[in-house]
Amino acid sequence: MISLELDLGERSYPIFIGTGLLGRKELISPYIKGKRALIVTNEVVAPLYLEQVKASLDGIECDVIVLPDGEHTKTLDTLTLIYDQLLEQRHERSTTLIALGGGVIGDITGFAAATYQRGVNFIQIPTTLLSQVDSSVGGKTGVNHPLGKNMIGAFYQPQCVIADTDVLASLPKRELQAGLAEVIKYGLIDNLVFFEWLEENIEALLAGDKDLLAEAVRVSCSDKARIVAADEKEGGVRALLNLGHTFGHAIENGMGYGVWLHGEAVATGMVMAADLSARLGYISWQEAARAKTLIARAGLPVVPPENLSAKDFRKLMSFDKKVQGGRVRFVLMREFGHTVIESDFDASLLEQTLEAKEHLCQQ
Amino acid sequence: MISLELDLGERSYPIFIGTGLLGRKELISPYIKGKRALIVTNEVVAPLYLEQVKASLDGIECDVIVLPDGEHTKTLDTLTLIYDQLLEQRHERSTTLIALGGGVIGDITGFAAATYQRGVNFIQIPTTLLSQVDSSVGGKTGVNHPLGKNMIGAFYQPQCVIADTDVLASLPKRELQAGLAEVIKYGLIDNLVFFEWLEENIEALLAGDKDLLAEAVRVSCSDKARIVAADEKEGGVRALLNLGHTFGHAIENGMGYGVWLHGEAVATGMVMAADLSARLGYISWQEAARAKTLIARAGLPVVPPENLSAKDFRKLMSFDKKVQGGRVRFVLMREFGHTVIESDFDASLLEQTLEAKEHLCQQ
Repeated sequence: MISLELDLGERSYPIFIGTGLLGRKELISPYIKGKRALIVTNEVVAPLYLEQVKASLDGIECDVIVLPDGEHTKTLDTLTLIYDQLLEQRHERSTTLIALGGGVIGDITGFAAATYQRGVNFIQIPTTLLSQVDSSVGGKTGVNHPLGKNMIGAFYQPQCVIADTDVLASLPKRELQAGLAEVIKYGLIDNLVFFEWLEENIEALLAGDKDLLAEAVRVSCSDKARIVAADEKEGGVRALLNLGHTFGHAIENGMGYGVWLHGEAVATGMVMAADLSARLGYISWQEAARAKTLIARAGLPVVPPENLSAKDFRKLMSFDKKVQGGRVRFVLMREFGHTVIESDFDASLLEQTLEAKEHLCQQ
Repeated sequence: MISLELDLGERSYPIFIGTGLLGRKELISPYIKGKRALIVTNEVVAPLYLEQVKASLDGIECDVIVLPDGEHTKTLDTLTLIYDQLLEQRHERSTTLIALGGGVIGDITGFAAATYQRGVNFIQIPTTLLSQVDSSVGGKTGVNHPLGKNMIGAFYQPQCVIADTDVLASLPKRELQAGLAEVIKYGLIDNLVFFEWLEENIEALLAGDKDLLAEAVRVSCSDKARIVAADEKEGGVRALLNLGHTFGHAIENGMGYGVWLHGEAVATGMVMAADLSARLGYISWQEAARAKTLIARAGLPVVPPENLSAKDFRKLMSFDKKVQGGRVRFVLMREFGHTVIESDFDASLLEQTLEAKEHLCQQ
C-alpha cells in the first residue's frame, strides 16, 4: 500500500492506494469519529462492494442509501434524498458519510457532508479509475444545475481517501477508458515524463495490468495532491486541472448529462485545447497530434459530437465557472507538457477549433 | 458610526453600526470585488430600502431578486430560485451577493453565496433588530428542512455587515420585540451588567429610542463577535449562543415555520431554560422569575403553545443539531448571568419543565 498526504494544514488527509484495502478495518476506523455512519452508494456498486465495506465498519451503526447510477442523478433532488434519510434516521453532527462509488457519488456525498448540519465528516472510497485519480482527491464537491455542471457546491475535504485498485478489475471497459482521460491529463498539464510513460504503456493499462494501473493512480494522485496543496480554492494554479474541461463540460451539458461520460467529454476537450494551442503557435501541430494520438489509443473520442454546433459550444461555455468579465478562460498548452490559463487571444482561432471537428490537431 | 471587527484570521470582517449607513457608497464599495452583484431581498423590505442600497452601488451592475416574506420561505426550493437567477443572468464567481432583509434573507443568501460556484462574496445588510444583533454576525447560513430548523447549511462568513439602526424605526412592534429576545439572551449568557441595563431601559427600547437601540445592537454584536472569534464552528463555547434555542426550535417547527417568530420562540425557550436551571438548583427561583419578568416586559411570550404537549417537545427536540449520542444537550444557567451546556441530568426535571406551562419559573 502507498500512502500519500494531501498537505492542507489542519485539513490535511491521507490517500491510501493499493490492493485489498476495502476490507481493512484498521484503515478506515481511525477516520470515523462518532458511532454512526451513512454509506452513500449506487445500484451498480452496492452489489459488488457494499458488504465488504460494511464488514470493515464493525462496531459502527451503519445505514445505507443506494442511489440510481449516472451523471443525470447529480442534482439537488438527489441531494434532498440524502438529507431526508439522514434526518429520518436521526444522524447527528458526529456522523460520518462514506462515499462508495465513482465521481458522481463522491461529489454528491461530499456536498451532503459539507452542508448537513453545517458540516459532518466524510470518507471517500472511489470505485472507478476516474474517481481514484481525480474527483475523490481535493475536496471539490457539488451537484449539477440544468444550466451548468458543478454549479452548486463547496470546497470540503474528506477525512481520508481509500483507493483500492482491485476494484478496477470490475470496471467496464468504457469506464476504464474514461478514467484514462484524466490520467493523460496529468501528463499534459505538467508531467511530460508521465506522458511518455503512458505512451509506452497505454495498451497494457487498457488491458487491465494491475501494477501499471496502480502506478498510474499513484502518479495521478501525487500530481493532484501537489497542485491542490498549492491552491486549495482554485485562485490560481489549480485551474490547470481543468484542462479540456471547458470544452468538455459544454459537451456533457449540451448532450444531456450522462450521454457522454465525463472522461470522454474531457478527452475530446483536451484534443480541442491542443488544437487551439497549436493554432496559437504555442505548440507544434506535431505535438497537438501526439496528444490526440494517445487519447485515441486509449479508446477515447477525439471528435466533438456532430450535433453540437460552434454556436452551441459558445453558448454552453459562457456558463463555465472560469468565465471572468464575460470572457471564457481556457487551459492551454503553452508548450508541450506545460499548461497556462488564457482568455485574451484572437477569437477567430477559437472559432476554427470549434469548426475543425474530425480535423482537430491537423494543420 | 461604530465599527467592530470579528477576528477570524484571514476571514475577519468589520461590522458597521450606526445611522444613515445604507446610502453610503464608500462603506459598501470596498467589499465588492467584481463588477456585478445580486441583491436578495423580500417583498416587505424592497419598497423601503432597495433603492437606497442600489444607489450606493453606483458603478456596479446590480440585479435583484425579491422573495416572499417569512420563515416558511427558508427552504431548498427558495434557494433554487436564487441559483436559477444567478445562472440565467450569468453571474460569475466574482459576483457579490447582498442580503438585504432579516434573518431569513441573511441565512438563505449566505448559504447561496457559500454554494454558488463553490463560494462567492457576500455582504449582510440586516434590516431587523434580530438580524442586526444575531443572525447577520458569525457566518451561520442555511435553510430549514421539514424535519428540523437550519438542518442544511454552512459556516460561511460575509465580507462585511452593515447594520443601519435607522431601519429599526420602520420595524413592526412585533418584530422589534422578537429582536429584543436575542438581545436579552446576551445578558443571560454571560453579561449580567448588560442584563441590568436592559432591566432599566426595556420600555424605552420598546418605544424605539434610537440611541438606546444603537447601544443594544453594539453590545450584542460585540458579545457575539467575541464568542464567535473564540469558536467559529461551534466546537464549544459558541453553543452557548443557543440559549433557549433547543426549546425554541421545537416550538417553531411544531407550530409550523413562521407562526411564532424566531425571537418569540427563543423568548419562551429561555424561560423554559431558566425554569429547568432552577429545578436543577443552579439558580434560585427568584432569579428564574427575574429572567421571565424581563422577557415578559419586552412583550414576548413566556408560555409555550397550548397545543404542543411534552411528548411533542421531546420528539421535536430529538432532531436538534446539538444532540450527541442520542441525548439532547441544553444550554442552562449554571448561575445567573453564566451559562453552560449539559445533557446529563435527571430527566424527570425536564419533564416538569415541559409540563409547567404558565407556571414556568414558579416554585
